[in-house]
Amino acid sequence: MSHKIAILGASGYTGAELVRLITTHPAMRIAALSADRKAGQDMAEVFPHLRHLKLPGLTTIEEIDFSAIDLAFCALPHGVTHGFAKSVGGRVRIVDLSADFRLRDGAAYKKWYGLEHGAMDLQPEVAFGLPEIYRDQIARARITANTGCYVATSLLPLVPLLQAGAISGDGIVIDAKSGVSGAGRALREGNLFCEVNDGFSAYGVAHHRHMGELDQELSLAAGRPVTASFTPHLLPMSRGMMATIYAAGDAGEVHRTLADRYGDEPFLQVLPLGQHPATLHVRGSNQCHIGVVADRTGGRVIIVSVLDNLMKGASGQAVQNANIMLGLDETAGLALSPVFP
Amino acid sequence: MSHKIAILGASGYTGAELVRLITTHPAMRIAALSADRKAGQDMAEVFPHLRHLKLPGLTTIEEIDFSAIDLAFCALPHGVTHGFAKSVGGRVRIVDLSADFRLRDGAAYKKWYGLEHGAMDLQPEVAFGLPEIYRDQIARARITANTGCYVATSLLPLVPLLQAGAISGDGIVIDAKSGVSGAGRALREGNLFCEVNDGFSAYGVAHHRHMGELDQELSLAAGRPVTASFTPHLLPMSRGMMATIYAAGDAGEVHRTLADRYGDEPFLQVLPLGQHPATLHVRGSNQCHIGVVADRTGGRVIIVSVLDNLMKGASGQAVQNANIMLGLDETAGLALSPVFP
Amino acid sequence: MSHKIAILGASGYTGAELVRLITTHPAMRIAALSADRKAGQDMAEVFPHLRHLKLPGLTTIEEIDFSAIDLAFCALPHGVTHGFAKSVGGRVRIVDLSADFRLRDGAAYKKWYGLEHGAMDLQPEVAFGLPEIYRDQIARARITANTGCYVATSLLPLVPLLQAGAISGDGIVIDAKSGVSGAGRALREGNLFCEVNDGFSAYGVAHHRHMGELDQELSLAAGRPVTASFTPHLLPMSRGMMATIYAAGDAGEVHRTLADRYGDEPFLQVLPLGQHPATLHVRGSNQCHIGVVADRTGGRVIIVSVLDNLMKGASGQAVQNANIMLGLDETAGLALSPVFP
Amino acid sequence: MSHKIAILGASGYTGAELVRLITTHPAMRIAALSADRKAGQDMAEVFPHLRHLKLPGLTTIEEIDFSAIDLAFCALPHGVTHGFAKSVGGRVRIVDLSADFRLRDGAAYKKWYGLEHGAMDLQPEVAFGLPEIYRDQIARARITANTGCYVATSLLPLVPLLQAGAISGDGIVIDAKSGVSGAGRALREGNLFCEVNDGFSAYGVAHHRHMGELDQELSLAAGRPVTASFTPHLLPMSRGMMATIYAAGDAGEVHRTLADRYGDEPFLQVLPLGQHPATLHVRGSNQCHIGVVADRTGGRVIIVSVLDNLMKGASGQAVQNANIMLGLDETAGLALSPVFP
Repeated sequence: MSHKIAILGASGYTGAELVRLITTHPAMRIAALSADRKAGQDMAEVFPHLRHLKLPGLTTIEEIDFSAIDLAFCALPHGVTHGFAKSVGGRVRIVDLSADFRLRDGAAYKKWYGLEHGAMDLQPEVAFGLPEIYRDQIARARITANTGCYVATSLLPLVPLLQAGAISGDGIVIDAKSGVSGAGRALREGNLFCEVNDGFSAYGVAHHRHMGELDQELSLAAGRPVTASFTPHLLPMSRGMMATIYAAGDAGEVHRTLADRYGDEPFLQVLPLGQHPATLHVRGSNQCHIGVVADRTGGRVIIVSVLDNLMKGASGQAVQNANIMLGLDETAGLALSPVFP
Repeated sequence: MSHKIAILGASGYTGAELVRLITTHPAMRIAALSADRKAGQDMAEVFPHLRHLKLPGLTTIEEIDFSAIDLAFCALPHGVTHGFAKSVGGRVRIVDLSADFRLRDGAAYKKWYGLEHGAMDLQPEVAFGLPEIYRDQIARARITANTGCYVATSLLPLVPLLQAGAISGDGIVIDAKSGVSGAGRALREGNLFCEVNDGFSAYGVAHHRHMGELDQELSLAAGRPVTASFTPHLLPMSRGMMATIYAAGDAGEVHRTLADRYGDEPFLQVLPLGQHPATLHVRGSNQCHIGVVADRTGGRVIIVSVLDNLMKGASGQAVQNANIMLGLDETAGLALSPVFP
Repeated sequence: MSHKIAILGASGYTGAELVRLITTHPAMRIAALSADRKAGQDMAEVFPHLRHLKLPGLTTIEEIDFSAIDLAFCALPHGVTHGFAKSVGGRVRIVDLSADFRLRDGAAYKKWYGLEHGAMDLQPEVAFGLPEIYRDQIARARITANTGCYVATSLLPLVPLLQAGAISGDGIVIDAKSGVSGAGRALREGNLFCEVNDGFSAYGVAHHRHMGELDQELSLAAGRPVTASFTPHLLPMSRGMMATIYAAGDAGEVHRTLADRYGDEPFLQVLPLGQHPATLHVRGSNQCHIGVVADRTGGRVIIVSVLDNLMKGASGQAVQNANIMLGLDETAGLALSPVFP
Repeated sequence: MSHKIAILGASGYTGAELVRLITTHPAMRIAALSADRKAGQDMAEVFPHLRHLKLPGLTTIEEIDFSAIDLAFCALPHGVTHGFAKSVGGRVRIVDLSADFRLRDGAAYKKWYGLEHGAMDLQPEVAFGLPEIYRDQIARARITANTGCYVATSLLPLVPLLQAGAISGDGIVIDAKSGVSGAGRALREGNLFCEVNDGFSAYGVAHHRHMGELDQELSLAAGRPVTASFTPHLLPMSRGMMATIYAAGDAGEVHRTLADRYGDEPFLQVLPLGQHPATLHVRGSNQCHIGVVADRTGGRVIIVSVLDNLMKGASGQAVQNANIMLGLDETAGLALSPVFP
């Protein structure tokens, strides 16, 4: 039996990535694709790399008959999914790739996104969508708020460590680097090839939007307020993300804690102590690789975490969340190995 | 039932790509991996992106028990597969990714590769491995000689056109461009990042080795000797290949001939007349996209053909050939969509 | 004594490149910089890489006092320089980087650019700006029409060969490839990093705008109408351009003709027969490297020509033209070696 | 009058960069070029981008007549300059781009480089070659030990801050990223295009060789032992380096300290408080850009420093040091603006 899937916002990179994954998923079938500004076009016009697939045409959201949809992936701009989630009715499950349901507190949402939150009353039906941390909640949720890519890269190592007390919550530094696809397909000068190629820059230093969800989850894990230093950078590459994390803690204990916690996870690989990973080793896959190295300054540890921002950081994670919500094998449709080189 | 597969030369890029494909193939199972200089190591050491897979360790070829192997992919250097094919015995099918069995004539092999051919007597068991052209021969062959990537990119459009007389055999120009992975993982100054990045160069102008198989197959298709101008170039990118082909012919007839011939092929997409493809639209997949445009100079046509040199140009094509040889669904294990961006 | 220079259109890549060159030029001084949409800003805001320089602020063209300007570089969109050239008065010399004065025929201009030409009466004061071909005319001109980058790359080898009859005018194929900076800083989806990186595509196949000037100059050189096949492609790199040219002719004679013609040129290097150049070997410099190889098909020759599209293909060429117009040493300000790697 | 220059180790990237700079230097002339393994070749064979220059041929060091040399740039492997400096005699000044004279303590040299230091007795004639910090010492030195690229990027902001007490010496984190040219032209699998392109990785985590000089200079500046956390990463680009530095201190005071200290420096640009720089904005130039941002965690500051590793991080810095040693204008030969894009 195939679950009927709608992808809302199919003309962006995460939308295209969802199509790539779901068209080979054994228990999902794409029933509708929306893209408001490109409604009426074929996916092959918007994404010629999907030319070989038989796909529904792009429509507006309004044209979709949601009575024939089991689950909707919302790859929409921030601020749009609220209204959709309230109007669509409780029968349709939602995996939201935007930030709309990530913050458990309306005031925090307003602070970071500048908008009133229109659907805080839905919070009881929402799970924070980091499968390795919130698997049980996701299984019961109607709406899963997919974790942002920077935050997923950081939380996957940090949450178990803070929960176990293996690192201090004070003085954590997260130096994060992302490929350009994290910025989407928007026309901005900073995303032009010549502005990025053969160069490297920081951006949003000390005030990036994703800090809201980062603070929230780190503090939950530690059981007290935690505020990390966090600097995002833009890499001259399309896909891939790394967080280099500096913290106070014993490297051996840090490594043991992560290896124990994630030993059976299909999408998390904890490298042998002293080794560290590269983004190319996860590109195109749903894998996250984590390395732990003792810093030469006593009592400090360096943790390196990598994933593909469009996969484990967005669409792959979304399919994993959907698998959990629908009671499917969590790895269904996600068994692709990385594409190297 | 799963066919037991050996991959010989598993420490190169095409070997790793075969592992990526076969580990999700529904009817194949990797039983042995060889890599002479890295025998004794794990694949995860040689290719950390395969860390999440359970794989046999790397061995020498001699250590493999071929009585337990159904089909061997040979991703070995030129000149090595001859001996293996003779010694292994007729029970084991072979898909050879080297040039060793592509030339039907020993003198041509010696001219282009500088070696005596040690196994010309096996020719009756050999098929030229371009599935869309030689499907029937491949189905009956014990050994399939996978087509080289440049030659596959060129022959897929040119063979049907020469067979149909839709273009002239005279004055064909093939301006070809390849990503760097086509050069393999060998340590050569010209393959260093700084020598390639942000730059573009031709190489092997007028004397590239692959011209032997190109001449052979173009002449067979035309029914008379055909010698095209052919210039390979190196692109500052990892994967992807384009041939821009200039020929005398009518664009409408050229387009019709290709669209008719390839309309039902799962891995060939002929674009609408006047459109032309990009390498990013096939990256990571087994697809080949072909575009046809009328040149503004009367009576001439420009044909653009793209594929992923490691997939349809090497390992993907090899799996497709193996599927045909083993009587499997030709698309088994190859339904991956391109990875974009 | 320093000539007072205005750069009109200073907020584009060619404008910034002019600033880079002129600020170290021994006999030029930047007196005015215009950029209509960014008037009022500093160059350091628009181009932070020029932060260390003392430069005039950006203004509108109207704000510039041209009585204090000796020469204006016009890096403006097509169709704008006509009006400026008519209004500014004959005292100010102009090097025009747009296509506005390249076509000697108003009908051709209308065909390729879709605009009526508003200043055909200025043609007697105009020179076609390819210094190695039209040096004497440039020395006498008030307006020099800088050659487009694709056309400069092609004409530098082809004009002497057609003039000398060393190649046939029939069946010339120019397969051209450009870095992305040739497209300027405009916000277009096709120029986004993720749409270009790690990929390669053709564009404008059989109908690129620059064909007008190409036809004009090839025909002038041959003394009869010449129409070449010409396909531009987009390389995943910022700077650099290559034309791979296929023609009927004897390689030895072709090489001798070019070596004789260009032996004393400071910015043209003809490689030894059989060698061919790479774009990285000219990046950032005003050099053009040309290689000649005999094709294996008898009587045909492959010519490879490379330059930096922003330098010898645009701003470097413009400074060279200005040097000639002002009676300066032709190499003044242009002695920079390529930046490699 | 022109100083006669020898470049030892001219076949590497820093050697080629020295040639690029010195051939346009108003008061230096290249008199000899050595490259032991390539002795007998022309530079144009080893570096075709220098084809347009008239240069001495490559020789061995032994073939050079040092009585006709005023200053030698040593771009040799670690461990080789010791012997040269002792044997050449005190008349020839030396700028050493290797690490051989950077460590003021023989035991530290042995710890980090695994070699006995053969020339500790020359220390009285040696200056640590960071011009903005050690200008006076360099002016008096016979041997200047050019600072390593990572260390220069870090020390330029950190030394004045530690000297002034504007930041704490405890808990400094330096997250550093380098383009691939920092690794030189050596044939290593990790430097192959396909291993680097479109990917990002850390290396030498917690035990990189340059930590010796980093510790030494940070401790000198602070007046007590300082050990920073330092992680180098490899960027998929050719040139450029960034250090993102996290420290305890007040952003306003940090910014003021740097702006005061560096306000008149020709090669250091301190950006307005709150802004941060990009590597592309210094590529190909001798500039270093530094930005300061207040961290959102109270009392902490984020400092971003960028330079071109082959210029201000190696050959440009070396020419600047040589200018000081020879009593020339410190900016001679170094007035090149960055190449963007």
